[in-house]
Amino acid sequence: MPSYTAPVKDVTFLLNDVLDFQRHGNLPGFGDATPDLIEAILGEGARFCEEVLAPINVSGDREGCTRHDDGSVTTPSGFKEAYRTYTENGWIALSMPEEFGGQGLPTTLNTIIQEFMSAANLAWGMYPGLSQGAAAALLEHASQEQKELYLPKLASGDWSGTMNLTEPHCGTDLGLIKTKAVPQADGSYKITGQKIFISAGEHDLTSNIVHLVLARIEGAPEGTKGISLFVAPKFLPDANGEPGERNAVSCGSLEEKMGIHGNATCVMNYDGATGWLVGEENRGLAAMFVMMNEARLAVGVQGLGQSEVAYQNAAAYARERLQGRALSGPQNPGGKADPIIVHPDVRRTLMSIRAFNEAARGLVLWTALQSDIAHRSDDEAARQAADDHMGLMTPVIKGVLTDVGFDNAVAAQQMLGGHGYIEEWGMSQFVRDARIAMIYEGANGIQALDLVGRKLPKNGGRAVMAFFNEVGSFLKDNKDEATLAPLLGPLKAGLDDLQTATMWFMNNAMAKPDNAGAGSTDYMHLFGTVALGYMWARMAKAAAAALASGEASDAAFLETKLTLAKHFMERHMPETALRLARVSAGAETIMGLDAEAF
Amino acid sequence: MPSYTAPVKDVTFLLNDVLDFQRHGNLPGFGDATPDLIEAILGEGARFCEEVLAPINVSGDREGCTRHDDGSVTTPSGFKEAYRTYTENGWIALSMPEEFGGQGLPTTLNTIIQEFMSAANLAWGMYPGLSQGAAAALLEHASQEQKELYLPKLASGDWSGTMNLTEPHCGTDLGLIKTKAVPQADGSYKITGQKIFISAGEHDLTSNIVHLVLARIEGAPEGTKGISLFVAPKFLPDANGEPGERNAVSCGSLEEKMGIHGNATCVMNYDGATGWLVGEENRGLAAMFVMMNEARLAVGVQGLGQSEVAYQNAAAYARERLQGRALSGPQNPGGKADPIIVHPDVRRTLMSIRAFNEAARGLVLWTALQSDIAHRSDDEAARQAADDHMGLMTPVIKGVLTDVGFDNAVAAQQMLGGHGYIEEWGMSQFVRDARIAMIYEGANGIQALDLVGRKLPKNGGRAVMAFFNEVGSFLKDNKDEATLAPLLGPLKAGLDDLQTATMWFMNNAMAKPDNAGAGSTDYMHLFGTVALGYMWARMAKAAAAALASGEASDAAFLETKLTLAKHFMERHMPETALRLARVSAGAETIMGLDAEAF
Repeated sequence: MPSYTAPVKDVTFLLNDVLDFQRHGNLPGFGDATPDLIEAILGEGARFCEEVLAPINVSGDREGCTRHDDGSVTTPSGFKEAYRTYTENGWIALSMPEEFGGQGLPTTLNTIIQEFMSAANLAWGMYPGLSQGAAAALLEHASQEQKELYLPKLASGDWSGTMNLTEPHCGTDLGLIKTKAVPQADGSYKITGQKIFISAGEHDLTSNIVHLVLARIEGAPEGTKGISLFVAPKFLPDANGEPGERNAVSCGSLEEKMGIHGNATCVMNYDGATGWLVGEENRGLAAMFVMMNEARLAVGVQGLGQSEVAYQNAAAYARERLQGRALSGPQNPGGKADPIIVHPDVRRTLMSIRAFNEAARGLVLWTALQSDIAHRSDDEAARQAADDHMGLMTPVIKGVLTDVGFDNAVAAQQMLGGHGYIEEWGMSQFVRDARIAMIYEGANGIQALDLVGRKLPKNGGRAVMAFFNEVGSFLKDNKDEATLAPLLGPLKAGLDDLQTATMWFMNNAMAKPDNAGAGSTDYMHLFGTVALGYMWARMAKAAAAALASGEASDAAFLETKLTLAKHFMERHMPETALRLARVSAGAETIMGLDAEAF
Repeated sequence: MPSYTAPVKDVTFLLNDVLDFQRHGNLPGFGDATPDLIEAILGEGARFCEEVLAPINVSGDREGCTRHDDGSVTTPSGFKEAYRTYTENGWIALSMPEEFGGQGLPTTLNTIIQEFMSAANLAWGMYPGLSQGAAAALLEHASQEQKELYLPKLASGDWSGTMNLTEPHCGTDLGLIKTKAVPQADGSYKITGQKIFISAGEHDLTSNIVHLVLARIEGAPEGTKGISLFVAPKFLPDANGEPGERNAVSCGSLEEKMGIHGNATCVMNYDGATGWLVGEENRGLAAMFVMMNEARLAVGVQGLGQSEVAYQNAAAYARERLQGRALSGPQNPGGKADPIIVHPDVRRTLMSIRAFNEAARGLVLWTALQSDIAHRSDDEAARQAADDHMGLMTPVIKGVLTDVGFDNAVAAQQMLGGHGYIEEWGMSQFVRDARIAMIYEGANGIQALDLVGRKLPKNGGRAVMAFFNEVGSFLKDNKDEATLAPLLGPLKAGLDDLQTATMWFMNNAMAKPDNAGAGSTDYMHLFGTVALGYMWARMAKAAAAALASGEASDAAFLETKLTLAKHFMERHMPETALRLARVSAGAETIMGLDAEAF
């Protein structure tokens, strides 16, 4: 049975030593987030994930969700109890506004808990995750009346949320949506159509489910400009705002999936269901994008979470499994064999996963902190810079953390040999569960196109230039730091490759957009490698400073950071040259084949 | 429901235009393999795989194998009927010696059929695959009496074979085997112990199962030098060589696995089972390695097979799925959207898989042909060179084709978005099934160590020098070929990187073997990339020659080869520099972390 330990110490190091979290004490909600409170939150969150969620992860996978003849859906054993504990402790509303029943604490803290939950039990964590996403969309686009009706229920966890976008014939291209909405005399709409792949579309955790649905109002323009957003709850709220009449929306079937069996993936049938417009007519896609951007960051965090838990279990196995001898001679001469952690290839694998996880966590928390600044700062320039960072990093975090997170789960599984392939050890589940994160909330190819096609050119490249400047300044400011010298050369080389690739797009993709598409995925990973390398440089600087201060309570912890930074620079930063070569190869060969030749 | 079309045309191009198969007509068995016969074999094999095996792949995955209370195991519906058709048509004995009931045809042809079967139904194909492996081991190490008893039964398919190596506490390190064998007065042995992960250990396809078992004879030396090989059939052969008394070996349970559900993975309990020594006492590991080497090539082919079938289904989806518009403007203006094959990122993904598959197939068939030469030539120098090639390429084919084959299955699954994640479309099964090939018959990390630690230094590096010379000569001989010019530069750069990495090991790994271990996996992939690139250079040369002859019946087919060759050189050959950088990074950082720090 796999186990999980939340990386509280690493998170604390990031918050305190790398990101200087307390420096933002002037932001609303940050003042309450004292070091003591943060310690309490992280400790409690870790305990909940380790002791409540992790133990029902394997059983949730085996049992899965069950749809009954009446269309109701039962979640696996223990999910309901865990959900009750979670909501009773107020976790879901950690960073929701106090006005609507939330605690108003920094989003950064919520993001940390999201990682813990995604690692301990991805399928379970999706239920509250979707509620948080729905709340974010309503908060930004709903009327005051809608907010007052739905947000407190979402914040308490009494009701949950969903997002209904995909239809059988369209996922990426939402302009093709057919679900229709017919205006009624009372200002509501009757919604009719079929939505597929709806996570948490039906379940037994809450007394009501708040569906956010994209549909086309009769007579609306074709394409994406005719899509509106509606709220269509499973039970129509009565005069007291409590669940009343059953709405005409139901789960037609559950999908059989590769993983996340504990989460109900539903075909949702809207048979003239009552819904209310959220935001403006025909502006539904923009409204849904609030939810999607929130969700994309959360999905990136899921990739990290699965990579982390897979790493922990592979490392534990490698320390214990006795098999063969070290190449340099027996390390455990009293035993019949050495633990496989002595083998360089095992260490290389584990260190690569670990080096990724720690940098990814740094990038996520840095970005979450920018999200807090973007939403809470009273300094317009700071808000703008933070928002630029968020927009730029969202596709990178979603695409890179889920691609590499999955690869890492596979690599961790490999450490167990045949034991990794059987379900008994739990490694297969990490792989099967992690796989979804590359697909949903915009498949990773779409993230790469979003980065290259939208985020790079936006505002004349303001966001990407700011990132280049930030990394460039770091390199300049630290050029005389002896401890950092072995790291900064590779980081500089990576940044150069990234800038060259960006320039290549400017020169070659304006006239020929296929040149952008042909290099988009490699560019996204090139960007990710440089961003992660930058996080390692910052973490190494913080670790070196703490060591130099002579006050470090755990020198080995900090020395490990320096070793992992070096590992990343030696073995991962050189990827940037390969990515640049591929970007520069352009689209000519790729477009040179007829469709029939494939 | 996924479909499969065997790549007969590509195989024929490789045999005729690239490998000049008919030039080897003087080898035993090759004379019979006339172009007409080969065409008939490929056509019939393709039809069997497409029409019999592929249709029971998804159902086999869903149904899985069932163990009954009496220890018997039932395979999924249709498996038994398919097996009967297969054996009635003599497929299993295609390249077994005529002396023991085989057809004596080239192993190369059997390898082609193995790919088709591995693509159409991996779980099913493992049953006869293990029989062929067991036959190979018996052929090389068994007594004449044993051969006469077992080989005709394996050749007819009446009996099947297994290999029993792994125990709960040891897989890679077979020196730790505990299963014991006690000599009996009649020359047989009583075998007692537990074996795990035994593929096809129990099933209902055949009237008997021939277990090859590694065990330790009482009083044998510790470690690998005390392991012997035994044959222990499920039913002891009676005086007529027919299944007689039930032996004391039984299936204790089936493993729940990530994939290959149609193949029974058994815990096998030996409770004083009767077995007979195969080959010499305490030389069992060497004898089993014959089977393992055979199996390793076959497992590499499995990686290719899954990559191929996943590609075909992703390409079909991409040609049909309408979603979004081409970056350069609508390509299907009459429709509501363009097929996603218009997108460069989709094309890049598909072309990378395809470029890998075709080169991998070339490498496999080239190597299979060397296997035929090694076993059948009467020219000692030719046999030695062919055997060198086999030994060198076996770990490369096993490790690279299964690592990349799995990645390709994942990439193909990604093309279907959410439809790839649900089981309905079959893409998830390709990923889950392909995953095992990286693990069994020696996990890929072990393949890399075999390459770097054994195969490179063997005979003073004779095999690897021969490979360098072969590629170097090709580069020299073709330096004036204009069509090949864009390909040879990258291939030369790749070869240089491979030679530099090899030299780095010579200079740095003799004194510090950890330096070999730290770079082994990257070196294996570096080797694979150069070998695949060399196959593309040869395929491009053949395609260009056929085009230049003016007699090509299908110019588009040949032009596609040239485009894919260019794609491989542009986007995959540059990986060699990254691999070299990692190899050169050495072991220092990797060994610098305490085991407790992981």
